[in-house]
Parts: sequence; structure tokens; C-alpha cells
Amino acid sequence: MSPDELVLEGIVITLDSAGHANIAPMGPRVDRAITRLVLRPYSTSHTYQNLKATGRGVFHITDDVELLARAAVGQLQPPPSLTPINGFLCPRLADVCRWFAFDVKSFDDSAERIVIDCAITARGEVRPFFGFNRAKHAVLEASILATRISILPGEQIRRDVERLATVVQKTAGLQERRAFDFLQTYIAAQLAASEP
Amino acid sequence: MSPDELVLEGIVITLDSAGHANIAPMGPRVDRAITRLVLRPYSTSHTYQNLKATGRGVFHITDDVELLARAAVGQLQPPPSLTPINGFLCPRLADVCRWFAFDVKSFDDSAERIVIDCAITARGEVRPFFGFNRAKHAVLEASILATRISILPGEQIRRDVERLATVVQKTAGLQERRAFDFLQTYIAAQLAASEP
Repeated sequence: MSPDELVLEGIVITLDSAGHANIAPMGPRVDRAITRLVLRPYSTSHTYQNLKATGRGVFHITDDVELLARAAVGQLQPPPSLTPINGFLCPRLADVCRWFAFDVKSFDDSAERIVIDCAITARGEVRPFFGFNRAKHAVLEASILATRISILPGEQIRRDVERLATVVQKTAGLQERRAFDFLQTYIAAQLAASEP
Repeated sequence: MSPDELVLEGIVITLDSAGHANIAPMGPRVDRAITRLVLRPYSTSHTYQNLKATGRGVFHITDDVELLARAAVGQLQPPPSLTPINGFLCPRLADVCRWFAFDVKSFDDSAERIVIDCAITARGEVRPFFGFNRAKHAVLEASILATRISILPGEQIRRDVERLATVVQKTAGLQERRAFDFLQTYIAAQLAASEP
């Protein structure tokens, strides 16, 4: 990898051996020009199993935080529309900012987080990313919290959600409010279920 | 404005009556399609004075957090390159994701924060926005903190900067690290100067 690499939060689509799509949020390390991805899924994840079976997938950059929030907690009903990529055996999100079709170059499965080195083989731009909106980022942070409920102390999660809610209140539009409300409800229910 | 409006953090360029450019970070409320901007500069700001004098400016969406950080604290040496917009009497940033030339429709200067309603008259896309990177957002949040040193308690600023530093550590590339280091140094110096 380049010395100038950073983490890019987006959505990975992979197919299982029966051709069913799996849609998962993921934050690969990338070089700034996005020619390589290093994915680090858990060994138990569908993304890892599918990449092991097929050796390919599509990474997406999107500003749709409702999709990111729902994908983070596995509640994607109805699922987003997919569309084929010419000459590539895995579909992409239809509504997206940018997409990157990738082939797996190598797996390192010596740890619980598998390290998967991927090369971008095709890419496309569909629509521009909105830009910096603090509420969109607050939803992203809340979706990360939602996946860490069994790991972080409940008090810390509540405090962080409250801090993020203030930002959403000041800077969100309708999509960001819906996504944040959805995650707040999800997180409250999970916390209530996990505490005595 | 549309019921679906949100805050978009970017850069505003205006010209004074002598033709000198002023470059300021600003978070206008916009409709999602970005056809209108509502700016709320302070009455003492160059942006307000210039808009009052000329009635026009350019709003920019950028993912360059080093530029945003330096603009936030007024340390833009060397200044970024500007380039003319055909048929519009105010230049734009040369390196940018998207730009929006706007005309002022109305001023409401009945409060300390002026409310300026602006209509977009021309726009362009130069390069894609990187996407969600938590370190870029941490720099944006730190640049907001840097402009609130006289308003917020020093203890809170230090705690927030520390929290953001953890995110930068995990997710930044070179640009984001330089920008965050720059703001950390600036904030530490301002806090030291403001405390007995």
C-alpha cells in the first residue's frame, strides 16, 4: 500500500455461491486514489465467506446514511436496487456516488479479523457525494455504536448518542433524521435487552 | 426553502470592492438539490461586508480538510489557487469538488447573525468528494472547536480534541494528520494564551 492510506467507510456487495447478494457496511483502508482496498471482515461474516468462494465484490461510496444505518444493523427491508456491471460477475448498488469492482489478491486469515488485499478492476461515478454534513457523520458514528453494543459500556453509548443527537438536531435534513431516529430506537432496544 | 433542508459545510469566496478575494469556511442551510443557500455570517465578517458591496459569491464543496482547517483560523498562507468563472464576477477555488456561483436575493440584518438568502446561478463539478472518512470529519469538528475557544470551557475543548485525536489516529491519511496536528497546535496555543 501507499504511505498515504486512509479508511473509507462504505458498502461492500458480494455474492454467495448461489448468487444471492450480501450487502455490508465496511471501512477498508485505501490509497487516496482508491486503486487498492484492504478489507478486514470477521471470519464469521458473509462478506468473508463470499469473497473466499468467489474472489470478487463491489465497494461503494455513498452519502445515503439511511442505507448505511440499516445495513449496519442488518435491517435492509426493502433491499436497495442493484444493477449489473458489464463484464463483472457481481452487481452494484443502483443509487450510489461511486462504485469500485474489485478482485481479491490475497487472504491473510491468521487472526480473527481476516486481512483481504483487493485490486480495483473497474470503477464508475453515478452522482456526486453531498459533501460535509455533520448530521450525516453523526448517523455514521451512531451506526458504528449500534454494532458495538456488546463491547462498549451502556453508559458510554447513551452519552455518545446524546452528543450526536444535538448535532443531528442542528444540521440534519429528512433522510438524516429518519436514519438517526431508526438507530436511536434500535440502540435503546438493544441496550434494554442487554441489561438486567 | 424546501422542508428538506440541511447544513452543508464548505468554503465561501467573495470579493471586496477593490477586487481582493476573501476565503471563509461557512455552513449554509441548503435544499438537498443545492439550488438555494441561506448564509448566516456575523455582521463583522468580511463575507458579510463583501456580499453587501457586491451581491455575489461562490460556495464550494471540498474534502480538503487542510484548506478547511487553515481557513477556519485565518491562516491561509500560501493562499489556494483561484480560477475565473466564465461570465461571473467572482473567482472560484481551482482545486475543489463542486462549486456554486450565487447571487444574493435578500439580507435580514436585524440580528447579530445576518441571514442572507442566495440563489445559485451557475455550478460545476471538478473532482469527486472522497467519501466518508472519520478523520476528515474529526478535522472539521476540530476546526469548529478552534473558532469557539472564547465561547466554550477549556476543559471541554481539551476533552473533545482528545476524543477526535483517537479517530484521527485510526483512520487518517497524510493530509488529515497534517490538518489535525495544525489545529491541535493552534488550539493548545490559544488555550494557553487565554488562561491565567
